[in-house]
Amino acid sequence: MADILHRIGVEQSSPKEVYDALTTLEGLSGWWTEKTTGETAVGGVIEFRFTPGDISMKVVDLDPGRLVRWEVVDGAPEWIGTTVEFDLRQEGDYTIVMFKHEGWREPVEFMHHCSTKWATYLMSLKQLVESGDGAPDPRDQWISDWH
Amino acid sequence: MADILHRIGVEQSSPKEVYDALTTLEGLSGWWTEKTTGETAVGGVIEFRFTPGDISMKVVDLDPGRLVRWEVVDGAPEWIGTTVEFDLRQEGDYTIVMFKHEGWREPVEFMHHCSTKWATYLMSLKQLVESGDGAPDPRDQWISDWH
Repeated sequence: MADILHRIGVEQSSPKEVYDALTTLEGLSGWWTEKTTGETAVGGVIEFRFTPGDISMKVVDLDPGRLVRWEVVDGAPEWIGTTVEFDLRQEGDYTIVMFKHEGWREPVEFMHHCSTKWATYLMSLKQLVESGDGAPDPRDQWISDWH
Repeated sequence: MADILHRIGVEQSSPKEVYDALTTLEGLSGWWTEKTTGETAVGGVIEFRFTPGDISMKVVDLDPGRLVRWEVVDGAPEWIGTTVEFDLRQEGDYTIVMFKHEGWREPVEFMHHCSTKWATYLMSLKQLVESGDGAPDPRDQWISDWH
């Protein structure tokens, strides 16, 4: 098993603001992909449509202002059954986001790609909350031939 | 043991150009930190000075246009003894860089930070080779309270 890990700090923000950007269709479409639909409550499924493909996430855990946890129920075969977690806390002027995409069966080339791509999307989340303007798909930062 | 993995594609470039940016003081100071000194041949030690601290890397393997491998010999305690590898290959118009920072003893919070930070520095490497202008420390992209 292999995991993708990241950490960002969102300046001049509260965990509540970052939590809202992770748990509302408006928030998610402002940093991850503009085409976000579905149900954001626990047990619901959120559908994310990207230029290179689609991902569906089941919301498995929510703790307001503290934790968001999804399970991948549809998307690339390597993603199915993996989980994505955002852990939030306040640290001075920053909201710290500890990110984990866990349960990859093998550290395949696609996992390397997704690790870098998650970093750019987390920077988009940071920008959205700090300035009101993120870079979701299809306005996201391209990192390679794989988008 | 835990690893940081990334993958970028440098457009309109050759593995030789990317290799040069990884194996010359001029190249390294153009994307990682402006304060780069030392010996870049196999067996040599390269000293990287960053705003938040210093890192020294021993060059343990070089395969021109294909591979660069370093061992961390000085720096943050969590980094000592870990290895950093860049694997290069041509894929159409792109040079693909497969990156690994291996051998972390524990997936500590600092490892999460370094994973995101490596992504932004690899994007800086991409920019340097594509446009001639990277974003090395101290002109690097800040990702949090930890720089």
